[in-house]
Amino acid sequence: MRDILPVLNGWYSAGVPFGLATVVSTSRSAPRDPGAAMAVGPDDEVVGSVSGGCVEGAVFELAQEVVASDEARLETFGYSDEDAFAVGLTCGGEITLLVRPVTAALDPAFGEIAESVAAARPVTVATVTDGPAPRGATLAVWPDRVTGTLGTTGLDVAVTADARGELALGATGLRHYGPHGERREDAVTVFLHSFAPPPRMLVFGAIDYAAAVARIGAFLGYRVTVCDARPVFATPKRFPEGVEVVVDWPHRYLGDTDTDERTVICVLTHDPKFDVPLLEEALRRPAAYIGAMGSRRTHDDRMKRLTESGLSEAELSRLRSPVGLDLGARTPEEVAVSVAAEIVALRWGGSGAPLTATAGAIHPS
Amino acid sequence: MRDILPVLNGWYSAGVPFGLATVVSTSRSAPRDPGAAMAVGPDDEVVGSVSGGCVEGAVFELAQEVVASDEARLETFGYSDEDAFAVGLTCGGEITLLVRPVTAALDPAFGEIAESVAAARPVTVATVTDGPAPRGATLAVWPDRVTGTLGTTGLDVAVTADARGELALGATGLRHYGPHGERREDAVTVFLHSFAPPPRMLVFGAIDYAAAVARIGAFLGYRVTVCDARPVFATPKRFPEGVEVVVDWPHRYLGDTDTDERTVICVLTHDPKFDVPLLEEALRRPAAYIGAMGSRRTHDDRMKRLTESGLSEAELSRLRSPVGLDLGARTPEEVAVSVAAEIVALRWGGSGAPLTATAGAIHPS
Repeated sequence: MRDILPVLNGWYSAGVPFGLATVVSTSRSAPRDPGAAMAVGPDDEVVGSVSGGCVEGAVFELAQEVVASDEARLETFGYSDEDAFAVGLTCGGEITLLVRPVTAALDPAFGEIAESVAAARPVTVATVTDGPAPRGATLAVWPDRVTGTLGTTGLDVAVTADARGELALGATGLRHYGPHGERREDAVTVFLHSFAPPPRMLVFGAIDYAAAVARIGAFLGYRVTVCDARPVFATPKRFPEGVEVVVDWPHRYLGDTDTDERTVICVLTHDPKFDVPLLEEALRRPAAYIGAMGSRRTHDDRMKRLTESGLSEAELSRLRSPVGLDLGARTPEEVAVSVAAEIVALRWGGSGAPLTATAGAIHPS
Repeated sequence: MRDILPVLNGWYSAGVPFGLATVVSTSRSAPRDPGAAMAVGPDDEVVGSVSGGCVEGAVFELAQEVVASDEARLETFGYSDEDAFAVGLTCGGEITLLVRPVTAALDPAFGEIAESVAAARPVTVATVTDGPAPRGATLAVWPDRVTGTLGTTGLDVAVTADARGELALGATGLRHYGPHGERREDAVTVFLHSFAPPPRMLVFGAIDYAAAVARIGAFLGYRVTVCDARPVFATPKRFPEGVEVVVDWPHRYLGDTDTDERTVICVLTHDPKFDVPLLEEALRRPAAYIGAMGSRRTHDDRMKRLTESGLSEAELSRLRSPVGLDLGARTPEEVAVSVAAEIVALRWGGSGAPLTATAGAIHPS
């Protein structure tokens, strides 16, 4: 949708109603991901795309209908084998679209959302797609404020809290609720669409543990890069699909790449020659989390070298070493869970204690 | 290998040397998983299989060679497109085999391992496949004892500790070490082969969170089953491949299925009508972990009903509710990490506190 938002905002600002179709879910391999959008505006002008071409005709008519009726529709399209071939798929697939009319009356926050996206300010937009709540109703969640309503206060409160979680990860997808926001019910389906890049996870050291940490990083929504100076270990074959694998000296790679205050950095190298210059670079950069693996002895030795390198107390205090929560983790997967748990706890201020042993809210509101 | 172990043990007991080929790793889709084995014994008798047929000829010769030379070999076979077609693959693949001679002198624990497997007693066998350690050397790890050596005490200690982790999960795969067991080095490759079924994770309630909990359960090595009474939610499509999805009343399904002291049970249903009878059943059964999701209010209400149902204090104390560690988790993936972290901490006795705030050993030895 990001690509066509300037055109949509032009129509919106001019007060012209338009029909907006958004991919809200897909099954098996579909040509476009959730969030892809197509719109039909004045004079039947079409922008964007929701498939490789095969369902656009039907969507065009649906978009006209929703504008005429002022009522949103939810439609699922399956690809026949022939269609699948036409859009370059070999195994079929299915996409579900929400098609809704957009006007200033129905969607008062649309202009503000478009401006945020244009200015690269992160925002998550929640839209009701199904169930006993007004279909097409939207709620926009920024880090510091909320606009709109999904129909009930309970639903607004629950979705706002969850949208903040997805916003931090730049994640997009469906969530289910009860009519008043009950988290373990399924009656109401809400599409959470985040306009923010996913945060980065940088894993240094292509050891056994790195593959497990990379997998759980991807599971949590990170865009993962693994970097190691040794070409025999830093091979894409050893890592899950979608993980970027870089052969370079860790501190040199980190010096040349971008990090921001959401980036997590996991140092799994095992050699002061790699990890001391790497941590010197990391501790002076924006990052949400900087963790380094190693025994207590490695940690003490590393801290000594880092102190000698002139890092300040405040810079050194950012280092989580030894990395992870104390779970007694043994296998690479268990260690990866302990690292992921520490990253989540640091993000939201959790203590790591069992919830059975604490009181108060289970997650921040 | 389990299938051919009785034959191998016959040869071993009779003092006849044989050549044993074991799949230690595969890439892309390969016909057999790590642990599959083929052996060549007296009079060139062949048992077992390591592929769909295409590399068995070469393995036959290798097995004869290793018996003649008394030296283990590591060999990788790639499938050409033609071979791949022959074994029913469409995209090629690669398998790596360790081929080693087995005699009483080279492998004194072989008979004891075979007896354990026959008696369904869990054991993990570690074998050096590559690097500066004696190729083919084995170490067998039972819950209560260890036999054999991989060449250095440091390597034996590290591999024993890790094998206990894999043993608890019935997991099989390669791990890498330094020559003296250094965990973050890669020089020595060791194949850990567990003869134990993977533990079960039972997830009740096919809500959004269930898919995330099922994924992280599979990541940790569990054989995952999701059960819900509602056929529209309990569909395989909503869950990752490999997860069993059952439509049944939770307490009825649990009443009819097997659990053991490694089983983890996650109750994500949202209705006392489902979860009270389910937890009554769960809390009276063998299980490593029984967790139930819900707000503090749901928890209080549930505990009241469970107490009324006549469960003892000891039975009730097994319930982890609200489920998970206090990470402030928001997204389904974050909640799943908090549940996984609690499961691991309970398994090995971890506190959940950050390792930066604790002293002493990072994982149990």
